[in-house]
Amino acid sequence: MYITGLKLHPIAIADPPLRSSYGLHAPFALRTIVELETTGGLTGISETYGGDGPLAALEAAREHVLGRDPFQLTGLMASLTAETDAAAVAGGRTQTYLVPGENPLDRHMRTFAALEIACLDLIGKAVGKPVCDLLGGRARDQVAFSAYLFYKHAGGGGVGGDARHDEYGEVLDPTAMVRETRQMIAQYGFHEIKLKGGVLDPATEVATIQALRREFGPSFPLRIDPNCAWSVETSVAVGRALQEDLSGGGYLEDPCAALEGMAEVRRRLMAEGNLTPLASNVAVTCLADVPAAQRLDAVQIVLSDPHYWGGLRQVQTLGNLCGVLGLGLSMHSNSHLGVSLMAMTHAAAACPHLTYACDTHYPWQTAQDEVVAGGRIPFVNGCVQIPAKPGLGVDLDYDQLARGRERYQKIPYRKRDDEAEMRMHVDPDWKRILPRW
Amino acid sequence: MYITGLKLHPIAIADPPLRSSYGLHAPFALRTIVELETTGGLTGISETYGGDGPLAALEAAREHVLGRDPFQLTGLMASLTAETDAAAVAGGRTQTYLVPGENPLDRHMRTFAALEIACLDLIGKAVGKPVCDLLGGRARDQVAFSAYLFYKHAGGGGVGGDARHDEYGEVLDPTAMVRETRQMIAQYGFHEIKLKGGVLDPATEVATIQALRREFGPSFPLRIDPNCAWSVETSVAVGRALQEDLSGGGYLEDPCAALEGMAEVRRRLMAEGNLTPLASNVAVTCLADVPAAQRLDAVQIVLSDPHYWGGLRQVQTLGNLCGVLGLGLSMHSNSHLGVSLMAMTHAAAACPHLTYACDTHYPWQTAQDEVVAGGRIPFVNGCVQIPAKPGLGVDLDYDQLARGRERYQKIPYRKRDDEAEMRMHVDPDWKRILPRW
Repeated sequence: MYITGLKLHPIAIADPPLRSSYGLHAPFALRTIVELETTGGLTGISETYGGDGPLAALEAAREHVLGRDPFQLTGLMASLTAETDAAAVAGGRTQTYLVPGENPLDRHMRTFAALEIACLDLIGKAVGKPVCDLLGGRARDQVAFSAYLFYKHAGGGGVGGDARHDEYGEVLDPTAMVRETRQMIAQYGFHEIKLKGGVLDPATEVATIQALRREFGPSFPLRIDPNCAWSVETSVAVGRALQEDLSGGGYLEDPCAALEGMAEVRRRLMAEGNLTPLASNVAVTCLADVPAAQRLDAVQIVLSDPHYWGGLRQVQTLGNLCGVLGLGLSMHSNSHLGVSLMAMTHAAAACPHLTYACDTHYPWQTAQDEVVAGGRIPFVNGCVQIPAKPGLGVDLDYDQLARGRERYQKIPYRKRDDEAEMRMHVDPDWKRILPRW
Repeated sequence: MYITGLKLHPIAIADPPLRSSYGLHAPFALRTIVELETTGGLTGISETYGGDGPLAALEAAREHVLGRDPFQLTGLMASLTAETDAAAVAGGRTQTYLVPGENPLDRHMRTFAALEIACLDLIGKAVGKPVCDLLGGRARDQVAFSAYLFYKHAGGGGVGGDARHDEYGEVLDPTAMVRETRQMIAQYGFHEIKLKGGVLDPATEVATIQALRREFGPSFPLRIDPNCAWSVETSVAVGRALQEDLSGGGYLEDPCAALEGMAEVRRRLMAEGNLTPLASNVAVTCLADVPAAQRLDAVQIVLSDPHYWGGLRQVQTLGNLCGVLGLGLSMHSNSHLGVSLMAMTHAAAACPHLTYACDTHYPWQTAQDEVVAGGRIPFVNGCVQIPAKPGLGVDLDYDQLARGRERYQKIPYRKRDDEAEMRMHVDPDWKRILPRW
């Protein structure tokens, strides 16, 4: 079995006006669907970041992909890594200031991930096994996800005649957030709750977490992620205010920037006997960051994500590393469809040392945009089941894929820029300032 | 495909009277050949430690093996680990005083490894791929091994009518060791050289390494492994004397016991500008040991071995961990036949971060004992090639296997005890004393 074709499908999917410290989600999120065709007639698929950059990086990898045996992934990684941008490496890691998918230093890992996942789908189909079972066998048959709550403006995403129904309405205060959460949990059955913070003043966000705790009680662990919007001082103050509310399986995610800042927050909270763990997918974005994060005690939980950590085997490696170093493991997410959801589910199923429910943006997308045949992936009791079908367990709906491509062609967006959206729709003078509070 | 049969073949193989700080090799080494039979009619094989203990541990795993899908290895590991001997764990790790294969704390990892390797052989055969390609794809097509030199008494191993030809004669001084090395390199083409030390007084062993350096020059990196026979003081003195001779890709392996001792040797050598790296497979025998070894700078090179690190995926995990922590990776060996050699070769091929030629005892065994169909595995230029055949790439010669079983039945040995052999054949008062010098 050799790879004979690489098809790249840039698509756009409606996305509600969600807020974060990066700014505002555009009405459409960009994704790329990858298809690998083989001599045997099988097709492997994956989903990754969208827009010009990721597309160009995948296009540049074409010569390393065509003619390759999909089992030979170590060689593919070596080929891509050999072309790492030396200037970007010299410039250091700047994830703090970049939206996910736009760190030049991670580019080859993201490109490799998209290809690895499609190869694993191919291998699974060839062998008749679900992807997680190609990686040593599943640690679990179903994967728990977390409710992922955003402050948002009114609107369901999309534009004009291509606008989506606004399921959740405007959510810009604690009361509305409790409503949003109730609604999402009623629909999906989640048992853990993540609040995207860094949007309103910290006192309101603290009040939001407190309201969620009152509403759902300690059996629904809470996490809050302001994406580095806070100073060390504010992070400590929030950690102090929320000590009880984040206890019992919750965490504080990237309250402030950089390992040094995180370490200081940790030190000061620990000095008060506050054990709230700190999680990160900003201060820690590659394997080399992990030992430093542990040494400084800056991060107690690392957020994996097959899309940018370099695929499913790299997530396993990260999980093993976290296990050895005594760190927890959770999973990060971006706006995505069902192919990504299945890759995340298989990655999580293949990690014995997964210690938290995974993030997913999936509730924010709609059936109208789903490219998976048969429609949206079901959640039962907050979990996605590993399908009995081989590979990722999902196929493409080519009509839906064509609609996604058409949508992409019609819109002007070619790169995620939440800051520009924020200026256009909310505040013409808005800038991302870190720390803001 | 489900496992329907587990066959365990205890065998004995002739072994020459090799010396180490553990004592003397018995005339026969013990191994176990594992066969897994499946519903589909395929058979997977592996080779592991021999004698009563390993056999009983594998027998005890039978209930977890029968009926299992060989892809479901994470579940198998979990089942075996659940039965870890709590008393052994509480007693801590005692590898310093135990011959390889006899640490009760590692027992479930060794048992799992034997089963994992046979499962990977099965999967490879079912899928039509070499084992290394099931693990993400090979990092190399051939694996370099090191000449593994022992001081020895006269004799080729075996007893009476079942004795083997003595290829190398008595080797108990530097001159004889140079001859042994020349002979082994002429036959196998090795480009790196390991001397098992801890046998003669350190001055003679230093002279041996110096003689080897004079004979082979700096293009043949040298390593010496006295298995903890030296004090910190002696280790430093040897490291000092051999600074030049071990440079250029050589190392000092387990000169003394425990991470603390190794760390002190390192500190004192480094203070003199002596960068000779320290390797270990005694102070570091599980993943949890690795960060501590790195933190103390006690070990710069970890010796993997699929047989006791828990199989091929665990060796990959170890390799990734070493890569992240900036440690080198080499591979340890024990007396073994061709099935083990192929497992070691596939493990090494699947580790991008392998930084040294691997150890192998293979030259010390003979065709008369080999259980692999077609006879001994060829070395070309010191390397073993990954075969094009699926799985491990070797099959069993059942007549040879039967002879190995008969040999096992005839001999009294059921556990490796180099100390007892030493007392019986060399010195009735011999004890393993650490440090001896």
